[in-house]
Amino acid sequence: MSGNKLFAREQRPSLWRNGRLATLDPGQPGLGIVEKGAIVTENGRIRYAGPEGELPVSVIERAEIIDLEGRWVTPGLVDCHTHIVHGGNRAREFEMRLDGATYEEIARAGGGIVSSVKATNALSVEGLVQASLPRLDTLLCEGVTTIEIKSGYGLSIAGEVKMLEAARVLGSMRPVRVKTSYLGAHATPAEYKDRNRDYIAEIVLPALDEAHAKGLVDAVDGFCEGIAFSTEEIGLVFDRAEALGLPVKLHAEQLSNLGGAALAADYGALSADHLEYLDDDGVVAMAAAGTVAVLLPGAYYSINEKQKPPVKALRAAGVPIALATDCNPGTSPLTSLLLTMNMSATLFGLTVEECIAGVTREGARALGIVAETGTIQAEKSADLAIWEIESLAELVYRIGFNPLFARVFKGERIDR
Amino acid sequence: MSGNKLFAREQRPSLWRNGRLATLDPGQPGLGIVEKGAIVTENGRIRYAGPEGELPVSVIERAEIIDLEGRWVTPGLVDCHTHIVHGGNRAREFEMRLDGATYEEIARAGGGIVSSVKATNALSVEGLVQASLPRLDTLLCEGVTTIEIKSGYGLSIAGEVKMLEAARVLGSMRPVRVKTSYLGAHATPAEYKDRNRDYIAEIVLPALDEAHAKGLVDAVDGFCEGIAFSTEEIGLVFDRAEALGLPVKLHAEQLSNLGGAALAADYGALSADHLEYLDDDGVVAMAAAGTVAVLLPGAYYSINEKQKPPVKALRAAGVPIALATDCNPGTSPLTSLLLTMNMSATLFGLTVEECIAGVTREGARALGIVAETGTIQAEKSADLAIWEIESLAELVYRIGFNPLFARVFKGERIDR
Ligand SMILES: [Zn+2]
Ligand SMILES: [Zn+2]
Repeated sequence: MSGNKLFAREQRPSLWRNGRLATLDPGQPGLGIVEKGAIVTENGRIRYAGPEGELPVSVIERAEIIDLEGRWVTPGLVDCHTHIVHGGNRAREFEMRLDGATYEEIARAGGGIVSSVKATNALSVEGLVQASLPRLDTLLCEGVTTIEIKSGYGLSIAGEVKMLEAARVLGSMRPVRVKTSYLGAHATPAEYKDRNRDYIAEIVLPALDEAHAKGLVDAVDGFCEGIAFSTEEIGLVFDRAEALGLPVKLHAEQLSNLGGAALAADYGALSADHLEYLDDDGVVAMAAAGTVAVLLPGAYYSINEKQKPPVKALRAAGVPIALATDCNPGTSPLTSLLLTMNMSATLFGLTVEECIAGVTREGARALGIVAETGTIQAEKSADLAIWEIESLAELVYRIGFNPLFARVFKGERIDR
Repeated sequence: MSGNKLFAREQRPSLWRNGRLATLDPGQPGLGIVEKGAIVTENGRIRYAGPEGELPVSVIERAEIIDLEGRWVTPGLVDCHTHIVHGGNRAREFEMRLDGATYEEIARAGGGIVSSVKATNALSVEGLVQASLPRLDTLLCEGVTTIEIKSGYGLSIAGEVKMLEAARVLGSMRPVRVKTSYLGAHATPAEYKDRNRDYIAEIVLPALDEAHAKGLVDAVDGFCEGIAFSTEEIGLVFDRAEALGLPVKLHAEQLSNLGGAALAADYGALSADHLEYLDDDGVVAMAAAGTVAVLLPGAYYSINEKQKPPVKALRAAGVPIALATDCNPGTSPLTSLLLTMNMSATLFGLTVEECIAGVTREGARALGIVAETGTIQAEKSADLAIWEIESLAELVYRIGFNPLFARVFKGERIDR
C-alpha cells in the first residue's frame, strides 16, 4: 500500500505545477500559502517553490511536468515522538481495565510496561522489524515522510541496542527518514527496583555508549516522572549525552510537575514532550532555550487525563508547538497523525494552523532537522504530501478519513 | 479499495475453515466464541456456523474450501446511525470555532446546519452519491456490511426525497446493505422559523408520504431537542409513521432531557440515540419496550460534551446498547467504526464485549434486522468481517489502525 514506487527517482528536474501550496515558510504569514504554486525538484531536493508565474522559462523547458490538478500540497508529515518499535501489544490489559481490574490485578497478570519489555526482548531485530512494519506503513499512508523512533523497551544493553538497530532497518526498508532516540531511562527493570542510579550506571550509560559507537543514536531521551526518573537521575544521562555530542529531549510533566522541562531547557534540549503539568517557570525556560513543546493528545485521551497542557502560556511565550502520535502499546496505541491533529484541536483547542505546523515544520524542529525538511523551500529535501481536499482545515476536521493523494519522499512519488 | 471483487458469488457451498469465530450468538455466553470454527455459506446465506469438528462430511466433500488460517471472524459490522449523504463539509466552521469565533459569527458566515442544507440541496442525486461515496468506502474498508443512512439536510419535499434516493443508489453501487431513515424533522428551515407545526404539516408529513410511496423509507427518525422539535411535535411525525406501518427511532436526550426516549419507547421505537441526558424513567421505558440505546461517542467527543450516557443504568436495566459513527458534517465528521469502538471504551467505559456487540448484533437490532444479519448463525445473511489480529480486544484497543483482512457480504468475499 505504501511502498509502491510508481515513479523512479528523477534524473532531470520535475516540475510539480498547478498546486496549492502550504509551504510553512517561516518568513511568510500563516501557513505560507501559495495559491497558484509550483515546485521544482531535482536529485531529491527542492530547487524552487513559489508562484508558478515566477518560474524561469529555462526550468519549464527542461523539466518533466507533473500536473497537481489544483490539489493542496503540504510538507511531508513528521511524527516526532513514537515508540513504534516494540513486541506484543497491551490489548489484554486494556480489556482488563475496562472490566474493572485494579492496577495490582493487571500487574499480577503480567501487564504494564513489564509485558512490553518481555515481548520486545523476546524478538530478534528482524522480529521487531516485522512487528513494527504495519504500524510504520499505516503512518506512511497518511503522508508521513519523517518519523522518530525511540528505544526504551529493552532496559538492557543488548535490548536497547537491538531496538535501535530495528529502527535503522525500518528506515532502510521504506522511503522514510528515521531519526532515533535512545530511551534507556524509560523505566527501571525489576532487577534494579529502587536502585535507579545503579541501573543508570550499569545499563543506561553503557548502552548509550555502545549504541552511539554503532551510530545508532540521533538523540537521547528520558522519562522524568515520579514513577520513572528524577531530574537528578536524568541529569546523569544528559551529561553523558552532552559528552558524546548528542542532542537531548525529555518526557516531562506528563503526570506531575517535577521541573523536567526546565532541566531539559538547561541542556538546550530539542524538545520537552507531554507537558500537561508544565508550570510558568518551565514555559519561560523552554522559550529561552528554544526548546519545542511536543504535545501528545493520544496519551492524554487514552489515559483519561483531565489536565491539559498550558497551550495559551506556550503561545504567549512563543514556544514552538509540535504534535506527535506517541505511538506506544501502553498509553497511546495510536497510528494516525491526522487523528492526532484532530485530537489536538478538539481536546487542546489548537488552531488549524497550529495543527498543520505541528506535524510539519515544528515536528522537524523538534528533531533538529528543520533545515532539512518540514517546509517546502528551496534547498530542502523534496518531502511532500499531496492531498485530495478543498481546504487545509479538512486535514484537521475529519476523523478517521484519509484524503492523501500521494506522498513524495526525496523527490520520489509514492502513490497510496 | 473496497469494491474489488476477487471471488464471484459462490455457486456451490463455501466452507470457511480454520477460523476463530465470534458468532455473537445470543444463546451463548459473551461473544459466542468458537475457537476452532467453520462457516458454511451458500447462495449468500450461512448454512452452518460452529465447531469445525462437527461439520457433516457431506458438506466438506461438496464445498469450495477457504482456509482462514486461524484468523478471527466477526459478523460484518453494522453502522446503525449515519448522515453520510450530504453535500459540502463544515471544515471552515470548525476552523472558525478554533480561532475563537462566536456562534453568531459562524452563523453570519453561513455556518451551522443551514450550510449543509444549502450544499445538499445544490446537488443532484448523482452529485450526492459522488460526494458520499468516499465516506461509504472508508467505512466499508473497516468491515462494514450494513449501514443506516438518514435524510435530514433537504428540509423540503424534493430535498428529502433526493437524499433517500441517493442512499438507495449507494446501496446498489457497493456490496453493502443500506437501511434508510427519513429525518425530515431534523431542523426547522429558515422559512418556517418559530413555526414547527406548519413545517411538519406542510413539509415533513407530505415528504414522508411521498418518500414512502416511492419505497424509500425503512424507518422514521426525528431530532427531539430544545433546538429542534418537542415531544409533541415528534409525536405528530410518529403518528404518521405508525399509520404507514413504519418503525420509528429518535435522536433523544443529547443536550438536555425532554423525555424523548420515553416517547420513542411508547411508540415501540427500534432505538433512541445519543442519550447523554437520559434519566431513570427513560431507561425504564426503553427496557420495557425493547428499544435499543444507540450511543454516539463521536458526537460526544466532537462537541466536547461532559455528560456521559448512563451506561451503568442501561446495563442494569438490560437495555441493548449499540454504537454508531453518527457520521455527519457538523458534530461528528467520523468515518471509522473501529475508532467508535475505541471511543466507546475510552470515553464511556464500555467493555470490549459491549463494543463488539454494539457494532454487530446490537447495531442490527437497532435497525430491526437482527434476524437477517449481525450474528454468525445458520439461516442469516453471510455477512462477515475477517481480521488480522490475535485477540478480539485489539479491535477496540488500537487507535487509527485497520486490521481488516477481508469482508464478506452475502457470501461474496471483498478483499481490502
Ligand atoms: Zn513517549
Ligand atoms: Zn444523528
